[in-house]
Amino acid sequence: MPIVQIEMFEGRTIEQKREMVKEVTRSLVRTVNCQPEAVKIVIREIKKENLAEDGMLYCDRES
Amino acid sequence: MPIVQIEMFEGRTIEQKREMVKEVTRSLVRTVNCQPEAVKIVIREIKKENLAEDGMLYCDRES
Amino acid sequence: MPIVQIEMFEGRTIEQKREMVKEVTRSLVRTVNCQPEAVKIVIREIKKENLAEDGMLYCDRES
Amino acid sequence: MPIVQIEMFEGRTIEQKREMVKEVTRSLVRTVNCQPEAVKIVIREIKKENLAEDGMLYCDRES
Amino acid sequence: MPIVQIEMFEGRTIEQKREMVKEVTRSLVRTVNCQPEAVKIVIREIKKENLAEDGMLYCDRES
Amino acid sequence: MPIVQIEMFEGRTIEQKREMVKEVTRSLVRTVNCQPEAVKIVIREIKKENLAEDGMLYCDRES
Repeated sequence: MPIVQIEMFEGRTIEQKREMVKEVTRSLVRTVNCQPEAVKIVIREIKKENLAEDGMLYCDRES
Repeated sequence: MPIVQIEMFEGRTIEQKREMVKEVTRSLVRTVNCQPEAVKIVIREIKKENLAEDGMLYCDRES
Repeated sequence: MPIVQIEMFEGRTIEQKREMVKEVTRSLVRTVNCQPEAVKIVIREIKKENLAEDGMLYCDRES
Repeated sequence: MPIVQIEMFEGRTIEQKREMVKEVTRSLVRTVNCQPEAVKIVIREIKKENLAEDGMLYCDRES
Repeated sequence: MPIVQIEMFEGRTIEQKREMVKEVTRSLVRTVNCQPEAVKIVIREIKKENLAEDGMLYCDRES
Repeated sequence: MPIVQIEMFEGRTIEQKREMVKEVTRSLVRTVNCQPEAVKIVIREIKKENLAEDGMLYCDRES
């Protein structure tokens, strides 16, 4: 514990994911007082056709 | 808020997803009194080999 | 299938939830062509101190 | 009910998944007293670059 | 890994949960070839007013 | 986007959650290049009887 899930659009590089998990883990260690090895992070990548806001798919919003 | 996740078998067209998120958003606006722009919907597509019911994978059920 | 999860602030009445699941189920039946008895909906209620946007908890935003 | 989600690294064979869902369903039937046909299991497969522990991606750990 | 989430109606005893996590962990070890200490299980308990099937809340079905 | 879910044991203060969401949001902004107002964080609090590792509930481990 904690178990973190991060959903974001696909397309980030491994380097960005590497920095992200390092930083997010540090943030949790500092603020909720846990051991870094207790932090698990799952990244879920989503296509723009699979996220909607305001009743509209993201793949339809950007133009 | 609300955040909606919909898990379904892969294979729907973008047109079906487009209608689905429009309709589901409207349903939420009408029934729980929220703003349409507050509704986020994440679609997760699942392969038939990754869903089971009654101890059996869906890819094994259909024959 | 589909399995739907709806996260929203706590405080809705059972009557609102009842209407919500009826409407959302209908929306899915109409748009992605599934049987109504195949639609499962899980509602997750969240306290305002457990949701954040823009780095701020909702319980701190409203004043 | 119950609805089970199992996240694991990609790369298991269908035969392994088939055995897994059979066994997990039986375990639930035996221990929490439910009908086997009430047990739904969703498998989510994750790439090693999408899981981190101790601030490090799994794809960076194994060497 | 694996990370397992089990959603079920509230009301199971700790003894039932204890047996359930023991059995489910064993099932995973046997079938997908993982170490028992790698298996994490999160139980989520749901009220009958927060689950619906076929457009109807469970708290309305049972009578 | 991103949508972040953080599961952790219950018992953190609002002050700890406040710091946590501020820090995690900043970490995401810095590393995956998103707007802070696009970051949503859901906190899920779990009882020790609802998490297991190595086939054992956490409420049984600590003694």
